[in-house]
Amino acid sequence: MSDQRVVRPTPISGFPEWLPEIRSVELRWLDHIRAGFERYGFASVETPSVENLDVLLAKGETSQEVYTLHRLQADAGDDTDARLGLHFDLTVPFARYVAQHFNDLTFPFKRYQIQRVWRGERPQEGRFREFTQCDIDVINVDRVPLHFDAELPRIVHEVLSGLPLPAWTININNRKVLQGFYEGLGIADPLAVIRAVDKLHKIGDDGVREILTGPAGLTADQAAACLELARVKGTDTSVVDDVKRLGVSSALLDEGLDELGFVLDSLADLPRGSVVADLSIARGLDYYTGTVYEATFDDDPGYGSICAGGRYENLAGQFIRRSLPGVGISIGLTRIFAKLVAEGRIGAGRACPTDVLVVVPAADRRGEALRTAARLRERGFNTEVFHQAAKVGKQIQYASRKGIPFVWFPPFEDGRPHEVKDLATGEQAEADPASWARP
Amino acid sequence: MSDQRVVRPTPISGFPEWLPEIRSVELRWLDHIRAGFERYGFASVETPSVENLDVLLAKGETSQEVYTLHRLQADAGDDTDARLGLHFDLTVPFARYVAQHFNDLTFPFKRYQIQRVWRGERPQEGRFREFTQCDIDVINVDRVPLHFDAELPRIVHEVLSGLPLPAWTININNRKVLQGFYEGLGIADPLAVIRAVDKLHKIGDDGVREILTGPAGLTADQAAACLELARVKGTDTSVVDDVKRLGVSSALLDEGLDELGFVLDSLADLPRGSVVADLSIARGLDYYTGTVYEATFDDDPGYGSICAGGRYENLAGQFIRRSLPGVGISIGLTRIFAKLVAEGRIGAGRACPTDVLVVVPAADRRGEALRTAARLRERGFNTEVFHQAAKVGKQIQYASRKGIPFVWFPPFEDGRPHEVKDLATGEQAEADPASWARP
Repeated sequence: MSDQRVVRPTPISGFPEWLPEIRSVELRWLDHIRAGFERYGFASVETPSVENLDVLLAKGETSQEVYTLHRLQADAGDDTDARLGLHFDLTVPFARYVAQHFNDLTFPFKRYQIQRVWRGERPQEGRFREFTQCDIDVINVDRVPLHFDAELPRIVHEVLSGLPLPAWTININNRKVLQGFYEGLGIADPLAVIRAVDKLHKIGDDGVREILTGPAGLTADQAAACLELARVKGTDTSVVDDVKRLGVSSALLDEGLDELGFVLDSLADLPRGSVVADLSIARGLDYYTGTVYEATFDDDPGYGSICAGGRYENLAGQFIRRSLPGVGISIGLTRIFAKLVAEGRIGAGRACPTDVLVVVPAADRRGEALRTAARLRERGFNTEVFHQAAKVGKQIQYASRKGIPFVWFPPFEDGRPHEVKDLATGEQAEADPASWARP
Repeated sequence: MSDQRVVRPTPISGFPEWLPEIRSVELRWLDHIRAGFERYGFASVETPSVENLDVLLAKGETSQEVYTLHRLQADAGDDTDARLGLHFDLTVPFARYVAQHFNDLTFPFKRYQIQRVWRGERPQEGRFREFTQCDIDVINVDRVPLHFDAELPRIVHEVLSGLPLPAWTININNRKVLQGFYEGLGIADPLAVIRAVDKLHKIGDDGVREILTGPAGLTADQAAACLELARVKGTDTSVVDDVKRLGVSSALLDEGLDELGFVLDSLADLPRGSVVADLSIARGLDYYTGTVYEATFDDDPGYGSICAGGRYENLAGQFIRRSLPGVGISIGLTRIFAKLVAEGRIGAGRACPTDVLVVVPAADRRGEALRTAARLRERGFNTEVFHQAAKVGKQIQYASRKGIPFVWFPPFEDGRPHEVKDLATGEQAEADPASWARP
């Protein structure tokens, strides 16, 4: 309308946003996930979006993915903000939080954290640069009971089961089993093997064998045994026997198999096949030290993990001189949700939360409409009053377009009582705002 | 424990974070605010934290407060991210959202948006660089009915009344009244007067008079009339008569007084004094064009506005060639909450959401404890199982330290039934997990 320059807005690749009818579904998911976490007694924590760079880089590994902040109008030479970066996960901020507030927390400390994280990726199809993660972690001083290794996948199972997802599987393994098995084979550098086996789903048996017998320096027999271990898979503690039958032994292997057996046994009541021990799962390099988790979609395992985690020896060692082991798992909400939206698998929810639209047939009925709406709101119904006197048909059309299920007619001057119309069925009936209930 | 370097974490000025027992209160507030917004039919929208800089700077005014993003490891000459900045409010992103999704929205579009925003301020005591805003706006094509000017302060009143705040007042004014009054006085540049009167609470009558009769070029009589208008204040439509008695008239003034009268009249049922017409409120320069809002704490008006907003002629004019007027209001959640926390006025909430801790008196009772907990969770109780067999006294101590109100004893082997202990009263009684209710 004005002559000013128009900046045509365009979506920014990697920063998803939703229309209200999709956002309402995401919000329902978030409520569901939070309720699931709280049901098990996890406490909410939020940390700033920003950390000091030396905190973010204390581990050094992920430096290439960090967004740093700069004041647009900073004075020359003013670098007060140059040391700030957006967090790229919720684990580093949580570790910093626990270290910083150590004396004010009760351990074992169980927290959930549902927040956005940022990765300074190059703009690229399907790569998110801002996304929401839903993390739960348990951290304790010196020792975290194995109880929690079993509790976390149970919580995730419960949470994911309550969402309308395509079939998924939570895969479980134990890094001690892998490392102990390789040690039992007399392999000098078990981490090199873990690193190679981690690529199994991408490069296949032959590719892994090539690395193992090549750069990793294994004999053909050793490599064959490693690949045999990676093939072990099962839904119950029989996998422990399957591993034992491979005839390798070490103290660490025994310890890992005990732990894996305990976790599988604890989850035995879950629907068969929803949790699977998969000895090929390794989850990265040197972060995890025991149980590891990785959930994937059954029909699209190549999409990668939709939730992941595991046990770590010392979460906050970079920030405090205390031994603080933990176990945690993270649901990649945006990763899951955006994929389903893109595939058209998320049915649109309601475009607004309104239960009832109270119509205003004429300007002098506005007071009555407002009083009716107030009464309905007191009783917990989300209620709108149409914003002006207008033809009732136009007001019903507004309700219909917004997906508002009920239209309310305040009493008319001729003494007719309140009436409510159910837009789904078209039925209209007398109603009392003090006692009406959704049919 | 390891020899590695320890990065001692320190709080970053301007980026607040809370302990779990404070966070649980903030979360309750957020739920309350959201429910209040939804009760009136406002739909949730979230936008990315990041916008293109040309979107953020389309108005030009606030450029000094923007944080821009940079990839820590960007290649030399790679400026793909150089055009991204964190949003500094929720109004600009909402305007961009409405323009971008114009064809997919139903108007009038009523949205709420509860998100963090960032200001690239210098680190400074009491200045937030990251904080949460809770915004509601109504936007429509060509015309927004006055209904909404009255509805927004009603919603804010309802929301704030449900929070444990020190006394506050929502002040209301109308820019048309100010501008129309100044025009009626024959003042050539009404905006200069608005700008001066806006400083009234800081520099007082004499300071404002000095500006008006000096740089603004008003006569002493004109300046006196402007100051008289700024003194008009009242809780009902009598303020309209008070303004009229000043003997100034213009078409715009009449229009503004009609609007102000309508809004005050619509809010007449609210507790007297909670909404006040204050003709000294101006709210900035050229953004708002009609009704304006500003809420402050009664005992600390100098702290500035705790919520603010108003009506604008054309929200998204920078982004789309449509006339999209709107009216909106924003609650400064962090501004309010952090102040009360600092003053010790926020009582600590629960450090965890757990209702019931089920104890594990001996390892062989673990199965029974887990089954009991599952039953309680099904029934909606947030339930923890103590993570290992231990002395019951130690487990009760854990519950007590975490503020868990009930401790549950699963049935013992000797056939004794379930018992539950209320830690507040010390009472212990038989209970059935299938029927127990909080006393």
